[in-house]
Amino acid sequence: MKNAQYLLIPGPTPVPLRVARAMDRPMINHRGPEFCKIIGDVVSGVKRIYRTREQLLIYPASGTGGLEAAIANFIAPGEKVLAISIGVFGDRFAEIATRFGAQVEKVDFPWGSGADPNIIKERIEKDKGGEIKAVLITHNETSTGVCNDIETIRKAIKEHPALFMVYSVSGLGAHELRMDDWDLDVVVSGSQKAFMIPPGLSFMAFSPKALAKHKVNPNRCFYWDVTLGLQYQESGQTPFTPPISLYYGLQEALKMLEEEGLENVLIRHRNYRDMVRTSIAAMGLELFTKDAFASNAVTSVCAPTEIGANSIRKYMLEEFNIILAGGQQNLDNVIFRLGHLGYVRELDIIAVLAALELTLVKFKYDLQLGSGLHKAQETLLKYHISKQE
Amino acid sequence: MKNAQYLLIPGPTPVPLRVARAMDRPMINHRGPEFCKIIGDVVSGVKRIYRTREQLLIYPASGTGGLEAAIANFIAPGEKVLAISIGVFGDRFAEIATRFGAQVEKVDFPWGSGADPNIIKERIEKDKGGEIKAVLITHNETSTGVCNDIETIRKAIKEHPALFMVYSVSGLGAHELRMDDWDLDVVVSGSQKAFMIPPGLSFMAFSPKALAKHKVNPNRCFYWDVTLGLQYQESGQTPFTPPISLYYGLQEALKMLEEEGLENVLIRHRNYRDMVRTSIAAMGLELFTKDAFASNAVTSVCAPTEIGANSIRKYMLEEFNIILAGGQQNLDNVIFRLGHLGYVRELDIIAVLAALELTLVKFKYDLQLGSGLHKAQETLLKYHISKQE
Repeated sequence: MKNAQYLLIPGPTPVPLRVARAMDRPMINHRGPEFCKIIGDVVSGVKRIYRTREQLLIYPASGTGGLEAAIANFIAPGEKVLAISIGVFGDRFAEIATRFGAQVEKVDFPWGSGADPNIIKERIEKDKGGEIKAVLITHNETSTGVCNDIETIRKAIKEHPALFMVYSVSGLGAHELRMDDWDLDVVVSGSQKAFMIPPGLSFMAFSPKALAKHKVNPNRCFYWDVTLGLQYQESGQTPFTPPISLYYGLQEALKMLEEEGLENVLIRHRNYRDMVRTSIAAMGLELFTKDAFASNAVTSVCAPTEIGANSIRKYMLEEFNIILAGGQQNLDNVIFRLGHLGYVRELDIIAVLAALELTLVKFKYDLQLGSGLHKAQETLLKYHISKQE
Repeated sequence: MKNAQYLLIPGPTPVPLRVARAMDRPMINHRGPEFCKIIGDVVSGVKRIYRTREQLLIYPASGTGGLEAAIANFIAPGEKVLAISIGVFGDRFAEIATRFGAQVEKVDFPWGSGADPNIIKERIEKDKGGEIKAVLITHNETSTGVCNDIETIRKAIKEHPALFMVYSVSGLGAHELRMDDWDLDVVVSGSQKAFMIPPGLSFMAFSPKALAKHKVNPNRCFYWDVTLGLQYQESGQTPFTPPISLYYGLQEALKMLEEEGLENVLIRHRNYRDMVRTSIAAMGLELFTKDAFASNAVTSVCAPTEIGANSIRKYMLEEFNIILAGGQQNLDNVIFRLGHLGYVRELDIIAVLAALELTLVKFKYDLQLGSGLHKAQETLLKYHISKQE
């Protein structure tokens, strides 16, 4: 029997039945009062997750659309931009800036590590003339399973006037992010991660400083235009037809997140991370990322070279209907990535780790069944005990 | 976050999304050609699960309705009936026969054991005058987790003319049952077990011998009347309005069972049983039922007396959103029952066993985390290896 799939990739994440049911509702007029009410609800709900009182727009787009919106609105052609990259998505942010005519200076850190605040600080301090107009950075790098310490990095360069722009598609809702307290200028996120709804919506919040920059920006995109978006939002509409079902789903998912409480959501994700990492280490497998940078959303695991990551993924799919993500670019067949983000059950993680052990044994990897799994159990037990205290 | 529930009771069992989607379809005229086609499909599909070419009717009723239909149609008031009981549902079958005026002789076996073919044979052999008109028996006794050896018991009393009537609500689809090969006269089942759809349909198949008996039976029920049911079935209809959504669901569930293959379905359930039993035993808990009678559908576990079965169930519900069944009557708070029937994933069983271990440790039961779980893993590994051979 083809059983329901275990979707443990770092997005899209499983959609709760409550959300799916909400999305089943009939279409309505997106220029009418009912949808106006929904826009109000979801914009303020998403802002609460962002911890911001600033402006926020919702685009009918994937997360990359939000990156494009950030560049198009807040960076002028010819401007110098410092793009900090720790992986595929940091590279993409830089690439978009290049396409829009920015002079991009990349600061790369090795894949598997986070960005070093001191190195960034040193570079910024050299920019006496204020040539750098924006700093681009990823919050949680999905390709490697690394979370950058945004708060510390932001503090390190706070005196510099450059806009600080954060890509937080897989980070938001899994790791703490406080847009206003941390003084972030632009934060981009997406619907298909901790927001627990299907792909198709991108969120972008921006500070007054960013908005002022937009006003004088010669870039003239239409789809991403912040002025147009805000104008329509004031009247309770969107500039173009919104994906109504996704708004229904978002409204329901935000209710779920508020029922749980954002703090608890973050602690839950941290528990997922700890369950996976202690268990993987006890299986004798190497974790691609050091503890200090470890993501709450996704864990990269180095496969035993004699087996290869893709054989493990293939077997787990065929035998257990479990989907894990592979490595990207040079990491293809080197790592697999186990997503533990959004509407994942803690016992799903137990189940998938159990299946991973069976898979390793099947490939003649030297492992005592249960040796990793019981570490995940121990971590989970501690989590439940701490919840009750 | 309230996660999706683990429903591990011996029915209702989880409904696959494919089935739920099929049930979402709009209502149609139950006297039209479209529904006529559905009736044809599902009646022949259910017959294949029964391994029968005899007549089969589908009642808009719970499983108990099917029992009532069996008694009402095939037993006349005043007739002598031998009711073999190994638990709550055997008792119920006997009780219904009593209500309809039969002279019921009970043959009880201790709860947790199966019926002994020799004892039944001895009793039947004493009935030289053929006074006993029917033998009632449960296939799988849900209240204790015992499966009767129907084939052997039937063979033991084959010479006697009494109708052999089997209650197989939780048995069919989890254990082998061959209505025609084994010469069973009446077999009753229900929708909410291995058929993977919600409660609300009961199935009853019957031999020509049973039908002949019905024809001369003075009982004049209307709702259960086999003559009426067959008359309508011939014209592709039902005597009264059928629960159309459940028929949609049944049609889809039968497709799923045929895609998997009935043999594989049975082997899969046997694997569930073995995973649970080896694991429970390794945790040091007592299994209520001996291996020889162990059900593929549900396992009864004796809780440590110092904890109590209901505390375990309560904790597992509150902490993990897992539903296990309790003990009935004298077994309340003594055993809990873990259902592994229908659309349950093998890794769900791993997950629930892991949570059971955490629960036991939380209640200070002396257990090494993983000590039971790794037995379930070993069993599962063997199952996967044997599937590939």
